[in-house]
Amino acid sequence: MTQTKYRTDTCGDLRMVDEGRDVVLAGWVQRVRKMGGMTFVDLRDRYGITQLVFSEDSDSSLCAEANKLGREYVVQAEGKVMKRSNPNKHIPTGEIEIDVKKLTVLNESEVPPFTIEDETDGGDDLRMKYRYLDLRRTVVRKNLELRHKMTMEVRRYLDNLGFLEVETPMLIGSTPEGARDFVVPSRMNPGQFYALPQSPQTLKQLLMVSGFDRYFQIVKCFRDEDLRADRQPEFTQIDCEMSYVGQEDILAIFEGMAKHLFKEIRGIEISGPFPRMTWADAMKYYGSDKPDTRFGMRFVELDGILKGHGFEIFDSADLIAGICAKGAGAYTRKQIDQLTEFVKRPQIGAKGLVWARVEAGGNVKSSIDKYYTQEILQQVKSAFGAEDGDLILILSGDDAGRTRRQMCELRLEMGNRLGLRDKNKFSCLWVVDFPMFEWSEEEGRFMAMHHPFTHPKDEDIPMLDTNPAAVRADAYDMVINGVEVGGGSIRIHEAGLQAKMFKILGFTEKRAQEQFGFLMNAFKYGAPPHGGLAYGLDRWVSLFAGLDSIRDCIAFPKNNSGRDVMLDAPAALDQSQLDELKLSVSE
Amino acid sequence: MTQTKYRTDTCGDLRMVDEGRDVVLAGWVQRVRKMGGMTFVDLRDRYGITQLVFSEDSDSSLCAEANKLGREYVVQAEGKVMKRSNPNKHIPTGEIEIDVKKLTVLNESEVPPFTIEDETDGGDDLRMKYRYLDLRRTVVRKNLELRHKMTMEVRRYLDNLGFLEVETPMLIGSTPEGARDFVVPSRMNPGQFYALPQSPQTLKQLLMVSGFDRYFQIVKCFRDEDLRADRQPEFTQIDCEMSYVGQEDILAIFEGMAKHLFKEIRGIEISGPFPRMTWADAMKYYGSDKPDTRFGMRFVELDGILKGHGFEIFDSADLIAGICAKGAGAYTRKQIDQLTEFVKRPQIGAKGLVWARVEAGGNVKSSIDKYYTQEILQQVKSAFGAEDGDLILILSGDDAGRTRRQMCELRLEMGNRLGLRDKNKFSCLWVVDFPMFEWSEEEGRFMAMHHPFTHPKDEDIPMLDTNPAAVRADAYDMVINGVEVGGGSIRIHEAGLQAKMFKILGFTEKRAQEQFGFLMNAFKYGAPPHGGLAYGLDRWVSLFAGLDSIRDCIAFPKNNSGRDVMLDAPAALDQSQLDELKLSVSE
Repeated sequence: MTQTKYRTDTCGDLRMVDEGRDVVLAGWVQRVRKMGGMTFVDLRDRYGITQLVFSEDSDSSLCAEANKLGREYVVQAEGKVMKRSNPNKHIPTGEIEIDVKKLTVLNESEVPPFTIEDETDGGDDLRMKYRYLDLRRTVVRKNLELRHKMTMEVRRYLDNLGFLEVETPMLIGSTPEGARDFVVPSRMNPGQFYALPQSPQTLKQLLMVSGFDRYFQIVKCFRDEDLRADRQPEFTQIDCEMSYVGQEDILAIFEGMAKHLFKEIRGIEISGPFPRMTWADAMKYYGSDKPDTRFGMRFVELDGILKGHGFEIFDSADLIAGICAKGAGAYTRKQIDQLTEFVKRPQIGAKGLVWARVEAGGNVKSSIDKYYTQEILQQVKSAFGAEDGDLILILSGDDAGRTRRQMCELRLEMGNRLGLRDKNKFSCLWVVDFPMFEWSEEEGRFMAMHHPFTHPKDEDIPMLDTNPAAVRADAYDMVINGVEVGGGSIRIHEAGLQAKMFKILGFTEKRAQEQFGFLMNAFKYGAPPHGGLAYGLDRWVSLFAGLDSIRDCIAFPKNNSGRDVMLDAPAALDQSQLDELKLSVSE
Repeated sequence: MTQTKYRTDTCGDLRMVDEGRDVVLAGWVQRVRKMGGMTFVDLRDRYGITQLVFSEDSDSSLCAEANKLGREYVVQAEGKVMKRSNPNKHIPTGEIEIDVKKLTVLNESEVPPFTIEDETDGGDDLRMKYRYLDLRRTVVRKNLELRHKMTMEVRRYLDNLGFLEVETPMLIGSTPEGARDFVVPSRMNPGQFYALPQSPQTLKQLLMVSGFDRYFQIVKCFRDEDLRADRQPEFTQIDCEMSYVGQEDILAIFEGMAKHLFKEIRGIEISGPFPRMTWADAMKYYGSDKPDTRFGMRFVELDGILKGHGFEIFDSADLIAGICAKGAGAYTRKQIDQLTEFVKRPQIGAKGLVWARVEAGGNVKSSIDKYYTQEILQQVKSAFGAEDGDLILILSGDDAGRTRRQMCELRLEMGNRLGLRDKNKFSCLWVVDFPMFEWSEEEGRFMAMHHPFTHPKDEDIPMLDTNPAAVRADAYDMVINGVEVGGGSIRIHEAGLQAKMFKILGFTEKRAQEQFGFLMNAFKYGAPPHGGLAYGLDRWVSLFAGLDSIRDCIAFPKNNSGRDVMLDAPAALDQSQLDELKLSVSE
């Protein structure tokens, strides 16, 4: 079905087997080269590039037309497929060229504001303003092609397992719990607003109450948050829910999906189950609930070895912990100073950095030599299993959690410096046993770490009354290369337990009823045990495509102010639109 | 992968081949029947119904437990698969039953507000409020299953043809042209608003400028319109666009898709191309741009025969037209009175109805016998090719367009009465050659009939300057059984022609630039010829499922006031939310 009104073939189709065929191609002018009496035009479309040839000898006026073509002109070329005397091994059509008999300019083009090449001269802002030209670049379009392929594979996998894709509404009610909602004023119900879903969480739970058994949806979700590189106000989730399952059932299905995607998208076979790590271990050994396990460098806690020797900073610390950077013992003073600067940056906030290098022969030389004997330093060395030429980096502080977060940053930085974070290597992990709650100083109450519908571990339920902070949840995240690509939980299906949960979270009964009454009512009519997971599609695609930002796998992303600079949205409304909505904007 | 923590099999799995197996099922209690010392429980899940058996003799306490089960209780049952002595031929699991050894109530249920059966006692409002229970009914769930299957098949078909699914943003700019937008206030850009897309029209055109060549997306669209039975504020389109194509290419691809869907979803093979009808003929012969062609009854215009005989109503009419209802000649006076009432209803607005019946032997008897001779009436009969026993129904009026619309309603009514609109019969049609513009009395200007990016027919372009009303567009609708299931057009890709179009539509250059500047700018950089189509997914599913309203194929639809009565949305916001958005609601 490639033949259409304007072409017989695409610019990626033709091979030596087509030699002698009369064809019509259409596409964009990538480049025009004049060589002697010949003119060569690279014609580009989504499928490839084909060389067009014009010769002054055989048709000088046609050749003159070709010479007038500008970059990005849209042209149609009729001609014969010929063997190329000087093949281009780098492109699949490189063995042939088209001896053009007729050339039609379908549309002209102004000179584009940046070059449409894999390596472009356009800066970020310019490329976002002219995103439609940026998307012409093969490197950018490939990301979107990968995204398409990925969603096709996701659907194929889930459909095979009996999951039904069900569209849930975009115009729902606002639930102030959690992140901020985007809201939509209702003209037919003046003064009232819909909200755009942060996720279809409650709706997919209702579908379980409805007996849908296995649900999924690839769906836009919305969060009105202050933005970072990795966040967009609208993002896409692969949202899934299952009934009559426990945690193991869900991990099996979605680990299977991850393996399926690795195989189909990246050609990587992952054998054996993904490793699992408790949330507590992830925090203790990596200072993060999404550890990058492409490399080791686990934290070693040194309080037992380094406290009580008169070094005041360590003696008074809540935690002393370090990492061992294999082979970095030769780091210069300057390199170590850079690392010290790195951890002292306000975003990280450490007070200083202690180092210890293992010299040839096993002796340990450190920045705290005057406080510790070589014997103690040898104990430190042993604690890491450090060897000659290794560099040990140690942080401490009066808040263990904060020190671990600082160590985490330092560890990732060392991973980068030592080339241990290869984008073509993938390390998958389940982080399990998340705490049920986290204490919010700001709100002065417990907040749900996952969300208020998460099921506590059966064995921890008695602690809901006595020690909520210690209660673990049937919640799990999938982490790949330090990126949380998805997460989920077993949900509460008992109305009584749900009510207790809202109580611990500080909801009055009235407030709980107002916000989640529809769900709690639904649970009165036979809710099955259920649970689920949501994968972040944008993150998955970024990971597979080796991108630094999810922005590059989104066709029309927004910038850090939530603006679409190409569409120039958001924008002021006509007064008549505001009037119809009975709204006014205050200063 | 059906085995999970709570079950070994589903309630639809087991057959005679499983006899003797120990199984665990989980599901909802559909019904409990006590017969002598036996208790039978129908256990239901999405996959089917399996009979559980309890016997007082073998375990009286277990049997007592079973007797206490209420409707919609969620239970888990362990037992052995047994041959049923009294098989149920109506269900696939009807040859077996489960001799239950252990019963666990996973969740109780209050008595549901209506029966969870195909034929329920719940009214519309109640079922919408408890939609999660309504969705438990197999007849409703089947519609959603069909919807899932349909989107899978659409994606399979388009993916095979090289279409890429690209997600376009939901938060875009407002374009007051066309229907009303839903808008979304931006907290980060106070006083500014995003709009939710009415369709990704301009974005998909930008993707063509980007060289994506073949795009599709199954996507939510939003229109803040006053609602009717087959309208929802959010609806789903199968949105498609292609480059380097003409109208024929698009019709071929999407006719192919329709055939694919008919085959895969309904098992119907449609051979040969779909008939085509010009918009002008559709209006002339059916009084509608979406004629139901499951039956004939085309309009016959009678001005030439019936004018000038002294019947003032006809003599002064702008149009006299009729239909011939085969075999309805025996309609009683009362039936004809009903039809007269029907056309005189304010929604239709005819002044009266003229009838003529062909009696046995060929004589014509009519309500206008005193004005016309039998000879004239015989001419009328011939004009319809009417035969003995047929009923001719004639309308007239001083506005031909209005009379045609009235005739259209009458024709559909007669189609219903004569049983000619069988939901299991499908008649597909392309309506082509739409006019480019329609005159808006309200606005005092031409409006785009399709949208402002529609390409005029090449041969009609000269008339843009001289007679815009006569210009036809490269626009087409697919109509099935009188439902417009999709439509599209070839788009303008030339900046100059687009500018002229905006001018005819009464846009100032400034206004055009403000609203569509991004698109017109994009067209300066080499826009390819392109065109597309959008199918209404909700309508397709309704059609295949034989539904009267698109509501029944939407999981959580809104009512005629745009409310989700289950979620109770929209609703008032917290003042703090309004404050953050710098908005206030005026009375």
